[in-house]
Amino acid sequence: MQVPAGDFLKRINNPSDLKEFKEDELEQVCNELRQYIIDVVSVNGGHFAASLGTVELSVALQYVLNTPYDQLVWDVGHQAYGHKILTGRRENFHTNRIYQGISGFPKRSESVFDTFGVGHSSTSISAALGMAVASQYKGETDRQHVAVIGDGAMTAGMAFEALNHAGIENSNLLVILNDNNMSIDPNVGALKEYLTDITTSKPYNRFRDDIATVLSKISSMGPDAFKIAKKIEKSIKGTLLKRSNFFEALKFRYFGPVDGHDVKHLVKLLRDLRDIPGPKLLHCITVKGKGYALAEKDQTKWHAPGLFDKITGEIKKTKYDKPQPPKYQDVFGHTIIELAEANPKIMGITPAMPSGCSLNLMMKAMPNRAFDVGIAEQHAVTFSAGLATQGLVPFCNIYSSFMQRAYDQVIHDVALQKLNVVLCLDRAGFAGADGATHHGAYDLAYMRCIPNMTVSAPMNEEELRNLMYTAQLDNMGPFVIRYPRGNGVMVDWQRPMKAIPIGKGRKVSDGEEVAILSIGAIGNEVVKATEQLHTEGYFPAHYDLRFVKPLDEALLHEVFTKFNHIVTVEDGCLEGGMGSAVLEFMADNNYKAQVTRLGIPDKVIEHGDQPELWAECGFDAAGIATSVKKYAIKRDNTHIIAS
Amino acid sequence: MQVPAGDFLKRINNPSDLKEFKEDELEQVCNELRQYIIDVVSVNGGHFAASLGTVELSVALQYVLNTPYDQLVWDVGHQAYGHKILTGRRENFHTNRIYQGISGFPKRSESVFDTFGVGHSSTSISAALGMAVASQYKGETDRQHVAVIGDGAMTAGMAFEALNHAGIENSNLLVILNDNNMSIDPNVGALKEYLTDITTSKPYNRFRDDIATVLSKISSMGPDAFKIAKKIEKSIKGTLLKRSNFFEALKFRYFGPVDGHDVKHLVKLLRDLRDIPGPKLLHCITVKGKGYALAEKDQTKWHAPGLFDKITGEIKKTKYDKPQPPKYQDVFGHTIIELAEANPKIMGITPAMPSGCSLNLMMKAMPNRAFDVGIAEQHAVTFSAGLATQGLVPFCNIYSSFMQRAYDQVIHDVALQKLNVVLCLDRAGFAGADGATHHGAYDLAYMRCIPNMTVSAPMNEEELRNLMYTAQLDNMGPFVIRYPRGNGVMVDWQRPMKAIPIGKGRKVSDGEEVAILSIGAIGNEVVKATEQLHTEGYFPAHYDLRFVKPLDEALLHEVFTKFNHIVTVEDGCLEGGMGSAVLEFMADNNYKAQVTRLGIPDKVIEHGDQPELWAECGFDAAGIATSVKKYAIKRDNTHIIAS
Repeated sequence: MQVPAGDFLKRINNPSDLKEFKEDELEQVCNELRQYIIDVVSVNGGHFAASLGTVELSVALQYVLNTPYDQLVWDVGHQAYGHKILTGRRENFHTNRIYQGISGFPKRSESVFDTFGVGHSSTSISAALGMAVASQYKGETDRQHVAVIGDGAMTAGMAFEALNHAGIENSNLLVILNDNNMSIDPNVGALKEYLTDITTSKPYNRFRDDIATVLSKISSMGPDAFKIAKKIEKSIKGTLLKRSNFFEALKFRYFGPVDGHDVKHLVKLLRDLRDIPGPKLLHCITVKGKGYALAEKDQTKWHAPGLFDKITGEIKKTKYDKPQPPKYQDVFGHTIIELAEANPKIMGITPAMPSGCSLNLMMKAMPNRAFDVGIAEQHAVTFSAGLATQGLVPFCNIYSSFMQRAYDQVIHDVALQKLNVVLCLDRAGFAGADGATHHGAYDLAYMRCIPNMTVSAPMNEEELRNLMYTAQLDNMGPFVIRYPRGNGVMVDWQRPMKAIPIGKGRKVSDGEEVAILSIGAIGNEVVKATEQLHTEGYFPAHYDLRFVKPLDEALLHEVFTKFNHIVTVEDGCLEGGMGSAVLEFMADNNYKAQVTRLGIPDKVIEHGDQPELWAECGFDAAGIATSVKKYAIKRDNTHIIAS
Repeated sequence: MQVPAGDFLKRINNPSDLKEFKEDELEQVCNELRQYIIDVVSVNGGHFAASLGTVELSVALQYVLNTPYDQLVWDVGHQAYGHKILTGRRENFHTNRIYQGISGFPKRSESVFDTFGVGHSSTSISAALGMAVASQYKGETDRQHVAVIGDGAMTAGMAFEALNHAGIENSNLLVILNDNNMSIDPNVGALKEYLTDITTSKPYNRFRDDIATVLSKISSMGPDAFKIAKKIEKSIKGTLLKRSNFFEALKFRYFGPVDGHDVKHLVKLLRDLRDIPGPKLLHCITVKGKGYALAEKDQTKWHAPGLFDKITGEIKKTKYDKPQPPKYQDVFGHTIIELAEANPKIMGITPAMPSGCSLNLMMKAMPNRAFDVGIAEQHAVTFSAGLATQGLVPFCNIYSSFMQRAYDQVIHDVALQKLNVVLCLDRAGFAGADGATHHGAYDLAYMRCIPNMTVSAPMNEEELRNLMYTAQLDNMGPFVIRYPRGNGVMVDWQRPMKAIPIGKGRKVSDGEEVAILSIGAIGNEVVKATEQLHTEGYFPAHYDLRFVKPLDEALLHEVFTKFNHIVTVEDGCLEGGMGSAVLEFMADNNYKAQVTRLGIPDKVIEHGDQPELWAECGFDAAGIATSVKKYAIKRDNTHIIAS
């Protein structure tokens, strides 16, 4: 839904329009920009609190920098709505995150002002450094390069790797640390405590004051003492204070902390910093949700609240007459507690996604057994491996697309050592509105090629619970369970759990001529397809493989013996995925059936609702039905297969 | 070859034997251990300089700790030969890195003293923290957990992620920073400079001295001044000095720097540190190659020198009568310079492997265009992506198994944005003596499922050069070139380069009945196999696909039209690899041939020479020939196919 912008904001179609305003007017621009974000997000949805916290930064940066010649990289991009609105996308902003609308993240193909596509955390310093080194190489010495990165994103290893490298390159790089104490959940870790210390705690500031007082006292003792005082002061300034800062240790010049909501001061600072060569860091203190009281108060809830009444703050929820199936993440969150109550070996690990994967439930119920380790997927997996060496059974929950960050750790630290780590991959398949960067498209392919792995995907909540139950049994080794974003299909999901034999699939419905093999929750689209096909007189069989590794060879022998036409369905990439595993089985066992593989094709799929994207890729119920009908012969509608 | 150990060392079959020595005797133990490493490595090969640098640490740790109850994790493991020798593997040490001998790295399945399998860098803090948290959870409060990590390994992001988490866990963790200023090549980055500063540079120490002098001067001025001096001292000690250290900022208690070659002092320190709770870091200064003068002088050369005369230091080289084919890495190293001289857009990037991938040649020839970014694969790839946004063409060279560390960056930062980054994967296929952790087994599978990627593998040096030439042409997008460890097959390799059409394979030799499809340098085993088969009266055809993505569809149509039996050969995993790509093509195009896939089977393959491992997996020339003969009909030997 389109909403009107304020009088100032209306005039800003690109950053050069912004530059026409006087500095005194910038506060009003900020107010209108903030209000516009509230107005649009409340009726269209999207990320919310992060962008409210960067309104002043967005305005000040575009006011001072000469973008797109100067290059600005937003880390993650949750916070870049203000940037989008100021850089030509105000009119389209209501299509944010909607199928075929603008992306919820900065994206190179969308705007020249989006210098680097983001979505995953902590890439900005590396990317901006690359740009800065390129400018240096080309002799474009006047060019500015700025990375804006949150204190949460700063905990990820690659941000540190980039700082470590940037510190020795003499290129023109400004890192703005947007310190709001938050990731999606509250930020954790030693660095966060350090930042809080230097921002708020007494000792550091008191020391500065102490030194000043003491030095003035010494100075007052006479000329000799004055000389001594000067000497101390010089030593302190020259060495200790310089080294006293984490970022200075990494050879960055450190400035701050400053108020990230004082737009005029930010403008002044950014102008000053333009002329300082080499790597430098500006530490800005901001408030996530700034200007919207409820969001300031509960920043996790308002990270991406969905639609809401902007006056009352009431979050709009679809009203249902009867109970609805739960989110898969909540099935995980409740089930791990249930399992952990019975099995003291179970531990829970999340890299900065406690509310996103619902491990927050266990963190509350069993704080000594559930860990948020920060945005640190690599560490999360190897830390889990360390726990597993001691006979514990860690459930490490990482979104499918973020697990790409820990691929080496999965191979090197978990799989090669055959450790009992349960890797729960939430948001597998299409992530929906978050789009290409967040789709869990590759996991079946990149996991099943690893030795010693069990790779499974439940078709519904009960199966998820049973797989979790199975994974925590003794000596299971590395065990992947991948499941989708969003809601399941069972209202009555809290059933008693039971073990599933490893590598054992199941027949969902009997049939003839064509067998459909599915893996995971997309199997529910197959169920819809077969139901529809039944009404049209087609009767394919449906098998749920459950495991892409190991394959259910008995089931596959049955299928290849009985069927000449097979359709595989997965919400993962076609290259190397489940369908390919079936082809490998077929070749190795010398069967000669016709196999049609449905899944994510070999291209970048953008954002949209899951059903929209399934349809685009031809594996929603309708697409599956169409594929089946190519090979099935229509029968008299009265012929019903027992299922 | 077995060599005798010294009198003390002979008596040490496990750490409890070591504990029987008096502290005064430890120096002699160290001498003998060092000599034993020199003796064995000089005649059997292996990593060398790193373990010489940790002799005293290895002895002191085993002397003080109660292993294996206390848990010791060696990072990477290049430096753990002393550890192996002291923990029951002295007698077997001469089988180090040999096929079916002991591993060159700590390995859980080899010894209870190897608490965590290593090989890739920077995992030790995460793993040891997992162990420490497990002990805390179990109430084993007396248990010690120690990670020994080099200053090079400390530059990798995951080490930082682990420090950031460990700093807020109150578990019993000691990190020993083995600071020798080196990775395999000299360590780089801001952290290294920082460590050098606090270790050696004047300002920091001078400041400490200054403060002491000044305070004593102030104190001498009378009681008031004394009070002031005390106040300053307290402030400095209480806050600034505490925060002045990088590791203290991350909530570690920092101790050091200390001499890592003073075994008695190390014993004392480790005893003291046992009683200090929480996370703590001991900064040890060591010399890589310590005790072997030549190795101390040229640490990169002596990282893993091969066999050598321990007296003269002469490194033994096989003498050849005629010129030999070059190493693939040197073909890369020379060719990138040749290309960069003609194309100013080309840049070179390596994460800490300049001598391993031969980018050191370009770093010397064009220092402003070639970058060693430290052990930082994630950053290396995204930094390259940043360069590519500016129209440059970065060649980012990362060993195949290390590229697993940057998988998300390849997808998220390079492929989704279709940036012209050339990813050169050295050590693809079997890495040889380094074993399971280092085999580049999965790259074809994990790369070909990514959209927008071109994935290629040259069969020989000329092809590598031509692929590199092709990859730097305009608008090539993300481009993978994977090639093996070791030597090529062409003496006359420096031929003029030419472009290869993307996705175009080639026929190596004509034939009948059976077609062999290979990718990459393993194709040379196919050549040997076909030569042998010719002598036996079998005449398979041989095609080199060159690209696993995109596939050469014209070539495959030809193959599937002409042949009913196809053997695919790749030195990569069978799950999802090239053979599977061929099966996908076959299914999608409704061909029905019999396809036998040869490659790395679904299990962990250990160390050994490449030919030994190829044979183990059945895709050396003999194995290939055997597979072909299953389907080929033997002909009269006089029938020769034109090739």
